[in-house]
Amino acid sequence: MNYKLIKYIIGWLLVFESVFMLLPVLVAIVYQEKAAFSFLISMGLGLLTGGLLVIRKPENKTMYAKEGFVIVSISWIILSVFGALPFWLSGSIPGVVDALFESVSGFTTTGATLIENIEGIEKSVIFWRSFTHWIGGMGVLVFIMAILPLAGGNNIYLMRAESTGPSVNKLVPRMKTTALILYGMYFAMTIVETLVLLAVDMPLFDAVNTAFSTAGTGGFGIKNDSLAGYSDAIQNVVTIFMILFGVNFNVYYMILCKKLYDVVRTTELKIYLGILATAILAISVNIRGMYGSVIETVEQAAFQVASMMSSTGFATTDFDLWPEFSKGILVLVMCIGACAGSTGGGIKVSRIVILVKSLFRELEISVHSRNVKKIKMDGRFVNNEVIQSVNVFMVAYIGIYVVSMLILSLDDFDFTTNFTAVAAMINNTGPGLEAVGPTQNFAKFSILSKLVCIIDMLAGRLELFPVLILFAPSTWKK
Amino acid sequence: MNYKLIKYIIGWLLVFESVFMLLPVLVAIVYQEKAAFSFLISMGLGLLTGGLLVIRKPENKTMYAKEGFVIVSISWIILSVFGALPFWLSGSIPGVVDALFESVSGFTTTGATLIENIEGIEKSVIFWRSFTHWIGGMGVLVFIMAILPLAGGNNIYLMRAESTGPSVNKLVPRMKTTALILYGMYFAMTIVETLVLLAVDMPLFDAVNTAFSTAGTGGFGIKNDSLAGYSDAIQNVVTIFMILFGVNFNVYYMILCKKLYDVVRTTELKIYLGILATAILAISVNIRGMYGSVIETVEQAAFQVASMMSSTGFATTDFDLWPEFSKGILVLVMCIGACAGSTGGGIKVSRIVILVKSLFRELEISVHSRNVKKIKMDGRFVNNEVIQSVNVFMVAYIGIYVVSMLILSLDDFDFTTNFTAVAAMINNTGPGLEAVGPTQNFAKFSILSKLVCIIDMLAGRLELFPVLILFAPSTWKK
Repeated sequence: MNYKLIKYIIGWLLVFESVFMLLPVLVAIVYQEKAAFSFLISMGLGLLTGGLLVIRKPENKTMYAKEGFVIVSISWIILSVFGALPFWLSGSIPGVVDALFESVSGFTTTGATLIENIEGIEKSVIFWRSFTHWIGGMGVLVFIMAILPLAGGNNIYLMRAESTGPSVNKLVPRMKTTALILYGMYFAMTIVETLVLLAVDMPLFDAVNTAFSTAGTGGFGIKNDSLAGYSDAIQNVVTIFMILFGVNFNVYYMILCKKLYDVVRTTELKIYLGILATAILAISVNIRGMYGSVIETVEQAAFQVASMMSSTGFATTDFDLWPEFSKGILVLVMCIGACAGSTGGGIKVSRIVILVKSLFRELEISVHSRNVKKIKMDGRFVNNEVIQSVNVFMVAYIGIYVVSMLILSLDDFDFTTNFTAVAAMINNTGPGLEAVGPTQNFAKFSILSKLVCIIDMLAGRLELFPVLILFAPSTWKK
Repeated sequence: MNYKLIKYIIGWLLVFESVFMLLPVLVAIVYQEKAAFSFLISMGLGLLTGGLLVIRKPENKTMYAKEGFVIVSISWIILSVFGALPFWLSGSIPGVVDALFESVSGFTTTGATLIENIEGIEKSVIFWRSFTHWIGGMGVLVFIMAILPLAGGNNIYLMRAESTGPSVNKLVPRMKTTALILYGMYFAMTIVETLVLLAVDMPLFDAVNTAFSTAGTGGFGIKNDSLAGYSDAIQNVVTIFMILFGVNFNVYYMILCKKLYDVVRTTELKIYLGILATAILAISVNIRGMYGSVIETVEQAAFQVASMMSSTGFATTDFDLWPEFSKGILVLVMCIGACAGSTGGGIKVSRIVILVKSLFRELEISVHSRNVKKIKMDGRFVNNEVIQSVNVFMVAYIGIYVVSMLILSLDDFDFTTNFTAVAAMINNTGPGLEAVGPTQNFAKFSILSKLVCIIDMLAGRLELFPVLILFAPSTWKK
């Protein structure tokens, strides 16, 4: 294990995170809030620690898969711990574990909150909370890679561990350029969303926060009723952007490169949009009569489906009051999740596609002797290692799910609450049903349960393996 | 597809099932019940249809994997439909779908009932209901194979499709002898259980029915309160036999062959007993104080854990009133299920072991380059095809689970009810939680939901693939 390299990268991470905190400081100055000091203290601490760690460049910048996983996991833990400081120092969230929960929920783009009255919190703190979504969405190490030449050409491992989906590829041969392009598109789309929200009369502060939250598919609201109080126009704009940020960013790069034919034949995109449309239709029929008009019914269905499938977690209505069938569909799309290579969470559509294809292949094999056929996607063969890794991903997913549910159940909330709480954590969605429904929050859980939630959110965001590897003894062997 | 062979085997199946009905006829005569006529009419129909089908022996007895799957699936459907006749003709269960549900629940050894007051039903009908568990437990085609030389040497495919577990092997080179040995041990153990139950003062009729139900890990009770009304001694005997019938019958053959060393090093057996012990301990601690004494607490925990894990589904207490943690453990062991090659249901311990090992292997691969290590079990390497098939099994399991839950949710029962109802069906356990808890039944569901339950029970008993293959178009292509 190349510990010097790990220390070095974590040092830069702290420096960058401190620089990010300049933004909430500016917000605090504009609104003349005391929280400015909390951010300044945090920044000081971060710059000092980070500075000390980056003074000595490691001679050996070699990085293998193992280092990639470990660096990403540890980075995200430190990112969250350090990001929790302002919540705690400002007194917005008095409990240490609670502040960490909120921070992890932010960076992992989960959006589950412990704050009961968000409208009573200082604006700079709210801004930082939304901004963590934006940082976490595309990945902080991807950002650092876009700016610094971190570890020679080997930091594909960092990107693989931090980005989402079964197989991560570079857009262009150079890692740094890939990172720059990704963040460039991400930045541009966030700006566009902010402008559109302003155009439909959302106040500036609300628009910026909502855009951060949508872009990262996070879901922290800045009102106690999430997005329910805003106009239909604002809600519909958010619906569209939630769907857009759930799409693989490769698709946007294809569009930039004018490879429209490639866009059209992207299996994952088609299935993603297909599932969205089917779910919206099914729920609209199921909840007919609950809202004033057909249009409002479809709008409500579309918002909630887009919110859950993209793993954002905003709500415009208390969908916990919907019929069981609709709630079942919401939980299902929550677990399926968004596209690989998006800022969204969940299992990811491409993994589901690979799993379904492997099921059909196995049925074929059972029926027609042992002619092993290869699985194709987007016209290319899917590597056997990828299929195997997707299968094992599901095993890890179910394993973490079961253990988490058992620990949560010690708090004696009902089965539905525990099941959907874990779904909301591991898929980085935010709200679940019953006691963790859209009008509820996670404050009711015990410290132990909150710690489990923290691990689940991190595991979900980093797609399980990097976090699991931290617990494997062989990782730490010489 | 060798249709002539399929017809021939199904013919024999009907003949055998008709002969089995002689037993309830005898019971009806002893208790002087009108139901005798229902059984006689059913027998007449079965012998006539079956007789016509077996008159012409197929010249070509070739059977491939495809025929194996198809024969087993269709056989089980016909077995259930025909077995439902007496329930319906006797008026014990007036609805056609309801009678089929009860019959499928019997043969698949699920044990979920639609009969609200079982104590008001004729004894011969109750006897047939318990007997379906016994027939279904070891498999009816295995029974026929033990007696008839069905399809030359190729009927390993029948046995593979009907027996449980990721890889089915013959005990001895000859298929027929293997089947004979399996049924011999099964018969002997059922007799032993009956005798022990008689020894602890259970009435004869109750003892025979309970032994049938335990042996097949079915779970139909003959009292309205399942086994709650019987003495501690009887309950403890049943606990032990439920655990025993959840063990791979290969283990008993090893004992017969005095290969005790092989027994001790059987991974699945150790893990099965380990999970049982851990679950009993955890629940005992969790429900402490709910029962009179420590011994009673452990007895209750042991009974319920053994019942759910072996997929029997008997109850001695309303465990739906237990704390969430205990209920969670029960649902978990229900899904894990018993050992491969037992009469029990669920995913099977050996599949879980293979999945967990494949997870650890993948973590190793991620950390230490691509040295593909092979997975070992019981000192032997596990074939890659088996691993792949186990992985795909999980995909199919989850897929069927999700679709079933969505359809059930149209009845608008709560999430817990739907989740555990599907668990109770696909794992062939019987009771779930909430509206399908141990003191409840499945009568409240709609016809559509009951049909889904029927498919799930069959799919669960035949371990998914044979049933899924019926729906694959390529199965029916020339």
